[in-house]
Amino acid sequence: MLTLDKVKDASNVLGKVINNTDILRMPIECDNDVYLKTENLQVTGSFKIRGAYYKISKLSAEERARGVIACSAGNHAQGVALAAQKYGIPALICLPEGAPISKIEATRSYGAQICLVKGVYDDAYQKARELQKEHGYTFIHPFDDEDVIAGQGTLSLEILNEMPDLDAIVVPVGGGGLISGVAFAAKKIKPDIKVFGVQASNASSMYNSIKEGRAIKLASVNTLADGIAVKQPGDLTFDLCKKYVDEIFTVNEAEIYTAMLTLIEKKKLVAEGAGAVSLAAAMFNKLPLTNKKVCCVISGGNIDVNRLSRVITQGLLNTGRRCMITIQLKDTPGQFSEAIGCIAKLGANVISAQHERLAANGDIDTCYLKMELETRNFEHIQSIKATLHGNGFNIIV
Amino acid sequence: MLTLDKVKDASNVLGKVINNTDILRMPIECDNDVYLKTENLQVTGSFKIRGAYYKISKLSAEERARGVIACSAGNHAQGVALAAQKYGIPALICLPEGAPISKIEATRSYGAQICLVKGVYDDAYQKARELQKEHGYTFIHPFDDEDVIAGQGTLSLEILNEMPDLDAIVVPVGGGGLISGVAFAAKKIKPDIKVFGVQASNASSMYNSIKEGRAIKLASVNTLADGIAVKQPGDLTFDLCKKYVDEIFTVNEAEIYTAMLTLIEKKKLVAEGAGAVSLAAAMFNKLPLTNKKVCCVISGGNIDVNRLSRVITQGLLNTGRRCMITIQLKDTPGQFSEAIGCIAKLGANVISAQHERLAANGDIDTCYLKMELETRNFEHIQSIKATLHGNGFNIIV
Repeated sequence: MLTLDKVKDASNVLGKVINNTDILRMPIECDNDVYLKTENLQVTGSFKIRGAYYKISKLSAEERARGVIACSAGNHAQGVALAAQKYGIPALICLPEGAPISKIEATRSYGAQICLVKGVYDDAYQKARELQKEHGYTFIHPFDDEDVIAGQGTLSLEILNEMPDLDAIVVPVGGGGLISGVAFAAKKIKPDIKVFGVQASNASSMYNSIKEGRAIKLASVNTLADGIAVKQPGDLTFDLCKKYVDEIFTVNEAEIYTAMLTLIEKKKLVAEGAGAVSLAAAMFNKLPLTNKKVCCVISGGNIDVNRLSRVITQGLLNTGRRCMITIQLKDTPGQFSEAIGCIAKLGANVISAQHERLAANGDIDTCYLKMELETRNFEHIQSIKATLHGNGFNIIV
Repeated sequence: MLTLDKVKDASNVLGKVINNTDILRMPIECDNDVYLKTENLQVTGSFKIRGAYYKISKLSAEERARGVIACSAGNHAQGVALAAQKYGIPALICLPEGAPISKIEATRSYGAQICLVKGVYDDAYQKARELQKEHGYTFIHPFDDEDVIAGQGTLSLEILNEMPDLDAIVVPVGGGGLISGVAFAAKKIKPDIKVFGVQASNASSMYNSIKEGRAIKLASVNTLADGIAVKQPGDLTFDLCKKYVDEIFTVNEAEIYTAMLTLIEKKKLVAEGAGAVSLAAAMFNKLPLTNKKVCCVISGGNIDVNRLSRVITQGLLNTGRRCMITIQLKDTPGQFSEAIGCIAKLGANVISAQHERLAANGDIDTCYLKMELETRNFEHIQSIKATLHGNGFNIIV
């Protein structure tokens, strides 16, 4: 049974294996005073080691001897692999073929065997269950398991120990393991604390399920926040959320990008999409609180760098620090030079430029200059456009 | 006079103003066991608040009343601005016009007046000295000052308190304020500890000065590590480095990029160029140590996101996760499709593609396809090139 003593036991077991990650103040202007529990700085780059390690510690000698198997899109894989390595037992992890190579390599680096499965997470799950039956491995569920939930709940002990006057904890929600543990433990320690969940609006299975009063399965999920892209809550986690979570909110993809970029700029922290949804909810004022002390769990930082690079670029475009512009030139010598000269004078930096003849029905004496520019802000972009316009250039986009 | 008691006094004064930043283990394969003192997570995003705040705390009432002035390319500006704000005294900061807008805005957000000066750091310094004379402001030097140095030295108290068995501390070096304080305090506490400095090879003023036995002024400095792009060491810092620093090493720009990317991928931490040189020296085995416990000071994380985005892209190219490729196509229908099909089958993702006729002396029936691809690693790139070649495409680059 899930009890506060069990969570405390988990905390003792985890002792020296994990970091008691820092809680840092987030200097942003919004309705509340925001703090970050930096689980992206946790061993394996996410909170998942907490539940996985505690679960494995509770296995019997016989269960350990059979070896463990897990299925994961990334973070749980690393948690199970490292925990198994520390206990000296074999681990087999099923990952969908498309999992980022960085997560696959990290899992392998902890000594786990990897089984890449064609298809998506659900296919990998099926495969893991088959292998379990066939070989008798012990299955480590990523969220719908009391020991795993107790492990995740240790976060609340650390948070409330450091911030006893906290008003609310905000937690990313996928399958619901993290928030179940956090909400259960937090309410047992401090009954008047609020615990809020946050999902990506494109993967809002728990949000919908709570709203409808029954566990709902989504047909598809599609979000940058792959760590919480889960189609259906667990049975156990659904019940715990109903009982202990105050409310669940959703954030859209643009809000997630902006939260990620803000973490990089203001706190020098890399969060994965799932890790940033809690901050996104706080900074875009989704919470029904004002002037309260709110701690957002930044649950993980395992994002493929190629994707991170695209998130940054998108974030720059969204905030006026990058700009795509296409202008029309007359096809006479000097036009290109004059346009580029305007831009140089205004201090924008050219990332790329294409000078071309376009348009099926275009004027044959017209050409186009497409550019990607580094800019300072939206006013800067406006002043560039105004100057180009003032110099007789037609701005297409 | 600089004494260990002065450093301890600074530590008391700094007390609740700064974070005792985490020391995290860096999981990389190299000659030594590497830890990171995460001053990029410090208030204001760099260690500079330590020296600036302690210096201002030591000013007389009369000196404070005159207001403070400083000159900085970024980090010292934020340190002085925040420290002055906390003491409720006016601050005027001279910044070179080209300073990243993010650093300018951050400085302004701490309530400082900003004076943007045409030119580079040295011009801003001249202007600050003029304004100081004219208005009687109190000048806060970024490094060549005993109180500032004592403030930076508080890092050693924190590091050696947490890791008494440490073998070496590795420190980024610009003007030399940080390493002077760190080396002085560390050697007083633990005489047999090694303290190493690291500079960018394109801005190696202290390295050259120590080698030649006199303070040398470089004609120019040009590095991504703008926080340590200083042309000449200070008088005080040069003497302290000669006396207390074991050796200074240099790292090149590619090593700095790679260290920055590694920090993002392995530790979810954003460091600025200057902040990453210490890790670059450890990971590229510049240190004359093996199997020792080494703590690298990650001195700051204030990098403009536009630049960060370019560092990531360059890092991806350097490690085979991004690839530019140009292939030759025969100018017949289906060729483009076939080439793109090959790439899709091999799981590379197209970032951009240009299909064009080039080359002044080229075959008029030939065209070229230039692409930027997301790839997994160098073997992946090789297999793409081999497949394209096997399908009869000529690879130009």
